[in-house]
Amino acid sequence: MTTTQLTLIQIDNYGPWTVTPEPRREMDLQTLQSRLFADIAQFIGGRNGYVFYTRFDNMVAVTNGIDREEHRILQESIRNRYPVTISLGVGVGATPAVALDEATEHIQAAGSAQDKDRTEVLSGTFLPEEDVQEIHIAHFDVNDATGRYTDQMNEYDSFIHIERSYASLMEYMRTEHGALSFFVGGDNIIAVCPSLTSTEYQAAIDHVRSDVNVELKVGIGNGKSPHEAGIAAKHALEDCRFDGTTVEFAGSKAHASGD
Amino acid sequence: MTTTQLTLIQIDNYGPWTVTPEPRREMDLQTLQSRLFADIAQFIGGRNGYVFYTRFDNMVAVTNGIDREEHRILQESIRNRYPVTISLGVGVGATPAVALDEATEHIQAAGSAQDKDRTEVLSGTFLPEEDVQEIHIAHFDVNDATGRYTDQMNEYDSFIHIERSYASLMEYMRTEHGALSFFVGGDNIIAVCPSLTSTEYQAAIDHVRSDVNVELKVGIGNGKSPHEAGIAAKHALEDCRFDGTTVEFAGSKAHASGD
Amino acid sequence: MTTTQLTLIQIDNYGPWTVTPEPRREMDLQTLQSRLFADIAQFIGGRNGYVFYTRFDNMVAVTNGIDREEHRILQESIRNRYPVTISLGVGVGATPAVALDEATEHIQAAGSAQDKDRTEVLSGTFLPEEDVQEIHIAHFDVNDATGRYTDQMNEYDSFIHIERSYASLMEYMRTEHGALSFFVGGDNIIAVCPSLTSTEYQAAIDHVRSDVNVELKVGIGNGKSPHEAGIAAKHALEDCRFDGTTVEFAGSKAHASGD
Amino acid sequence: MTTTQLTLIQIDNYGPWTVTPEPRREMDLQTLQSRLFADIAQFIGGRNGYVFYTRFDNMVAVTNGIDREEHRILQESIRNRYPVTISLGVGVGATPAVALDEATEHIQAAGSAQDKDRTEVLSGTFLPEEDVQEIHIAHFDVNDATGRYTDQMNEYDSFIHIERSYASLMEYMRTEHGALSFFVGGDNIIAVCPSLTSTEYQAAIDHVRSDVNVELKVGIGNGKSPHEAGIAAKHALEDCRFDGTTVEFAGSKAHASGD
Repeated sequence: MTTTQLTLIQIDNYGPWTVTPEPRREMDLQTLQSRLFADIAQFIGGRNGYVFYTRFDNMVAVTNGIDREEHRILQESIRNRYPVTISLGVGVGATPAVALDEATEHIQAAGSAQDKDRTEVLSGTFLPEEDVQEIHIAHFDVNDATGRYTDQMNEYDSFIHIERSYASLMEYMRTEHGALSFFVGGDNIIAVCPSLTSTEYQAAIDHVRSDVNVELKVGIGNGKSPHEAGIAAKHALEDCRFDGTTVEFAGSKAHASGD
Repeated sequence: MTTTQLTLIQIDNYGPWTVTPEPRREMDLQTLQSRLFADIAQFIGGRNGYVFYTRFDNMVAVTNGIDREEHRILQESIRNRYPVTISLGVGVGATPAVALDEATEHIQAAGSAQDKDRTEVLSGTFLPEEDVQEIHIAHFDVNDATGRYTDQMNEYDSFIHIERSYASLMEYMRTEHGALSFFVGGDNIIAVCPSLTSTEYQAAIDHVRSDVNVELKVGIGNGKSPHEAGIAAKHALEDCRFDGTTVEFAGSKAHASGD
Repeated sequence: MTTTQLTLIQIDNYGPWTVTPEPRREMDLQTLQSRLFADIAQFIGGRNGYVFYTRFDNMVAVTNGIDREEHRILQESIRNRYPVTISLGVGVGATPAVALDEATEHIQAAGSAQDKDRTEVLSGTFLPEEDVQEIHIAHFDVNDATGRYTDQMNEYDSFIHIERSYASLMEYMRTEHGALSFFVGGDNIIAVCPSLTSTEYQAAIDHVRSDVNVELKVGIGNGKSPHEAGIAAKHALEDCRFDGTTVEFAGSKAHASGD
Repeated sequence: MTTTQLTLIQIDNYGPWTVTPEPRREMDLQTLQSRLFADIAQFIGGRNGYVFYTRFDNMVAVTNGIDREEHRILQESIRNRYPVTISLGVGVGATPAVALDEATEHIQAAGSAQDKDRTEVLSGTFLPEEDVQEIHIAHFDVNDATGRYTDQMNEYDSFIHIERSYASLMEYMRTEHGALSFFVGGDNIIAVCPSLTSTEYQAAIDHVRSDVNVELKVGIGNGKSPHEAGIAAKHALEDCRFDGTTVEFAGSKAHASGD
């Protein structure tokens, strides 16, 4: 059984703030959002977790091994440096989707995202240290994205192809496996998964090809932390590139580099 | 005729850099990408332009009124502060898509995105100041996204609904009108458009509803700069909220606030 | 006659904010202050001005060529992204000190730095574009600081020597010439000066040596903007290194690199 | 006996980098330096340590409780996101000055700060967890700095007074007690100290008044981490403000707030 600890990070009452007293400069909002994400990525990444920006006003983090006190410090630090505050809901589950259900419910139970009196919720279940198990990270990318898209089409049309493959994969992995997939820039998608077989990963890739005609490949890694699993997945993806294969698990190749 | 100046911003040889000498920590890459975008948003936004993160290693900016020397300073400043450099291609066209075609071609002509000898391209056509005309910005959002999604579903399932509406709208607007639509966080999509009628905007909204069952509304603004047009669009979207309408043009309501 | 436009940037009511409702984490305050400075450095630097952090809650900028509307955008952008706001006072004078007197008076006239109702002052005199004249920037550093201090002493004792030279120079240049000198890191001090002779610069260096026994050298540049003058000063300082001299003016050496 | 763990953070070969291939834009260097400091402040502050910017190319951190692996992650993260790398020397001692001596020697032993082959040194002694003892932090500020200086003089002349008090205090505390004092903005100086008596702090304040005619007051806190000691010191300084006293130790007042 895989047990994942997920944290939902939600900016408190953000929508109304962006238009009060009147609409704010869009580029300032973009700057605020992306820097907030970057700061959270440094905080969580420095503790070997992962965070994804999703909608920016709501972010999803894999926080195995990061405790309640560290969540509290993050919340305090954001309050001290930004004009907005954040709520944090934490959940644990056998699949990432189940864990996120719980994390989300903890925040929803405290009030609406646009309730101005609901600020800085910190609520949820933290995985006891002795229960931390293997996390599975799958790192997908598009075969020869530079040669087929970036160097051939205008940037927006390249982007449309990448987006299509992401939309197709995210729904498939969510529905079939309770896995959560996140676009992380370029042609890269990182999925937080339960334990899946090579056949199941191949089926996901086949689905995306038949659905939107984009060819993906994937490297899969395991580890005690998202970082450890993710780095292993990146090495496995390098194996795919080297061998021309589409699904590789970390550690299965003799020539894998030894990070 | 609308004339838009678009800039394609491409990180030079970024893919190979991320795995050399071996794969880098993902949260560091996420931090690097989002802060680079934030810095560019401040640079361009402070000159009343707009930039969108799209794939993060490639970004698209609307840069009417920003000249070659300012592009050069941006490029130099990034080189001085980041471990990567950026190439800039600039294009002008009657539709945003045509302008981006040209911008992209200027960069592609200089070499591949993964050519390590192709760095800091600065090439393209700048709109003469006397030719700067009205820019059209459409600001879409999802009706009652908080009530229907954020406060009801787990965050990932909310995100899937928003993503579906974005994927549907981006392809429709691109194909039908040569408009470029960008997800900007929350439930917001900003489109850079040619001049379109209320009926054409309503048709886009109808398309998304019938395609993926998500209900959008839109405010449209015009202006000499993306910022000016974008702020007007935000005010028009507030009119939609106030009046329960789905398409509003800036300035058409007596009660519109006067920013 | 030299005419300099200086802007005093003051965080509104910052002292009380740092201890309300109780003292805030020091490292968050340090982060806030240094990032605020960095953002202002990018905004002003991208327009070829200079800003110095001085006390961080009060910063001094040389803003020749940056107009009132640009000051207003800076103020708005900070308000949109930080938990604090800034006031801006602008002054023009024949010496930097006189310009700063005026800039400061504009802010003081509006109320105390700790008056909670005095926010976002934007007041002062802007230099008309036709009156923009040569700015003089002097770039000092310590002779062989690495060999004599950094590689020999513990870091704090190195720092004490650098601080001593700075304290001595700042008072001398202020009193003798109405020049404002700013420590900018490492062993570097940048002074915004009226037009001074080589003898006057040599006298300043002699003063510091006799006062605190630290040996400085200086390159001086002129230009229409602080950036232009400052880059010329850096090249002149490189001439000092190359030739073993202590005072060099930009453009006086045949072998100067041709930036 | 007090035992402090100090880390010297030194940008590798920074001086030469700033002028290669020719001098870089000063505002970009200022941005780079202050953001690097901010990132380190977040990393160390989130682990309850303290860091001070001193010369920016060399920074001094109090890192009790932060281990070698965390130092390594910081080093890797900076390398991944900046155009420069950092070396870290770590030392332990009964006084802060002795600890910094050791930390500095570890870096100096590996080569000069301007040796281009000496990069990413990570060397030193880490305090075993069982040996972590009380840290002493003293937080000084200037009596009524706003009323006497900020609201009365031009900003540079206010700054000169604050600088004088800092220069005087830093040398006194270093020489008399092996304490390290750092200006942290506004009118605030934070000193990392061995255990000192109220009389010894009063003597320091008296020295500064007689030396440069600036009146300081000080709150002192103890704790297992710099953050814990520093917050206590801030509360004690609030006690000084409330009671009009000049030296207060945390916890000695019945009305002290109970953080």
